[in-house]
Amino acid sequence: MSILPAEVTIYEVGPRDGLQNESRLIDTSIKIEFITKLLAAGLPAVEATSFVHPQRVPQLADADEVAAAVLSYAAREATTQRVPVLVPNERGLDRAIAVGAHEIAVFVSATESFAQANLGTSLTGQMSMVTPVILRALAEGLRVRAYVSMCWGDPWEGAVAHSAVQDVASQLLSAGAHEISLGDTIGVATASEVQTMLRSLRSAGCQPHNTAVHFHDTYGQATANVLAALEEEITIIDSSAGGLGGCPFAMSATGNLATEDILWCLHQQGVRTGVNLEAVVAATTWLSQETGLQPQSRAYVALSHRFQGISPGGAA
Amino acid sequence: MSILPAEVTIYEVGPRDGLQNESRLIDTSIKIEFITKLLAAGLPAVEATSFVHPQRVPQLADADEVAAAVLSYAAREATTQRVPVLVPNERGLDRAIAVGAHEIAVFVSATESFAQANLGTSLTGQMSMVTPVILRALAEGLRVRAYVSMCWGDPWEGAVAHSAVQDVASQLLSAGAHEISLGDTIGVATASEVQTMLRSLRSAGCQPHNTAVHFHDTYGQATANVLAALEEEITIIDSSAGGLGGCPFAMSATGNLATEDILWCLHQQGVRTGVNLEAVVAATTWLSQETGLQPQSRAYVALSHRFQGISPGGAA
Repeated sequence: MSILPAEVTIYEVGPRDGLQNESRLIDTSIKIEFITKLLAAGLPAVEATSFVHPQRVPQLADADEVAAAVLSYAAREATTQRVPVLVPNERGLDRAIAVGAHEIAVFVSATESFAQANLGTSLTGQMSMVTPVILRALAEGLRVRAYVSMCWGDPWEGAVAHSAVQDVASQLLSAGAHEISLGDTIGVATASEVQTMLRSLRSAGCQPHNTAVHFHDTYGQATANVLAALEEEITIIDSSAGGLGGCPFAMSATGNLATEDILWCLHQQGVRTGVNLEAVVAATTWLSQETGLQPQSRAYVALSHRFQGISPGGAA
Repeated sequence: MSILPAEVTIYEVGPRDGLQNESRLIDTSIKIEFITKLLAAGLPAVEATSFVHPQRVPQLADADEVAAAVLSYAAREATTQRVPVLVPNERGLDRAIAVGAHEIAVFVSATESFAQANLGTSLTGQMSMVTPVILRALAEGLRVRAYVSMCWGDPWEGAVAHSAVQDVASQLLSAGAHEISLGDTIGVATASEVQTMLRSLRSAGCQPHNTAVHFHDTYGQATANVLAALEEEITIIDSSAGGLGGCPFAMSATGNLATEDILWCLHQQGVRTGVNLEAVVAATTWLSQETGLQPQSRAYVALSHRFQGISPGGAA
């Protein structure tokens, strides 16, 4: 705790990771406005959408329109904020390039079981699938982030070996990925497990400048796990406005770390993020009122009562 | 994180702190069975009830009956588990002695504002009120715990000075209290603030053997704050089954640290508590099904799905 960094980068996943999990279709215009509100709140990176096949996630059938609109907004504002888009395959990369994305995110699994369940392939197969995507994106001058799911536990396999995560991470970095996001997809990790894993990944190339952590609050550990990661010098933290979301293809993957919770944690301790917490709460409130989505963030609930003129949104 | 203790004492406050907050009256028999289930789960201390005036908290009008039944159960089981009862004044102490309690808990505020709001007196006045209670309890051979509310923030005064908490804590210890429970009643504290406060309280006599921490998850910080306290060698942790409760007289005091969340955190990291987490989940499930109370614990929600034969309880 005594070695907190001066500054942390919050990577906002709510518009993609949060909304892809919703069965109710949300209007394209609402998605676009939500993202622009989050950018206006000062978040340095807002993942906009995912170019998965519309039949797989109908919620994301409007990915091209959302990405184009938000990238156009970012260009108008001449912002240096990142607006990455998720890309599962070569076809997705085509679409990302077509809308003028500057950054893509790819995703793989640390475990064989989840590679099968989420990607329909093996650990080897997923690298054959994703490596050409990374290489072509790099050739096109795009920045590449790579998610690794199930780093701290897998619903079918239980605990995950450090070596399994090392293998996948080093392959992604070798392929040229700029940033690895290590996901505790089912939210089972605790603080010391976070630290031992992060230490073991140093040798695989996961260093503070290229490593993010992606925690879920499924067991109430997300904030504690972030602090544990900060102690290991990691300063890129994934979070979701309102705590919305989780992966629809992973059991128990509810409850992303809430952006409001981690901003409260960091700002109260003097760690800078450049993000306006009150504006994030306002964006979440607005989304909740427009869609009926119920934010899961503890700090959101507390702050939306507290900030004058903002009433807690969402259905009961 | 690297200096986690081998063992931690979980002090369960759910039956008192959780249930006193409920407007719906809960049957006396349900309270008694809930407490016995928690004791059977191995919790080393379960605060049973509070001898406040029935007009102040109608939910606790059956305090004498609940305490007598649970103390009788504990005697039959010949357990060394603690079953303290909360006592606001001399009249409450009379009732605690009458039912044969072995331990009482008193409570004071670290701030003038909350002393006024919760106790109707001043910082000086509260010590005049509570000191005779402590002295008589000690003379009767009872163990005495003392809660200090608003240690890390006050809804009216904002940040609380270390010196304010030091003053109150040292007076309570001087009066003979065996244990001080430092409460973040409105849940605003973050990890480094927990640590600096705990360090400053050492000089006031708050040492690991006599100091507990009582966190609320209002801003999603409770688990992280416990780990911060463990780093400061504190090993007595207050929590509430299901995350139920909070103080009805303090603004935003929702969401006690959930027993399930902290047990998950500790057990996964190899810290012993002597508590059966599955049995706590079962007790919370049972209470939820009997009363319609909705547990707030993240780990409870995840585990009640996971444990075979236990379905998540509670109203929608």
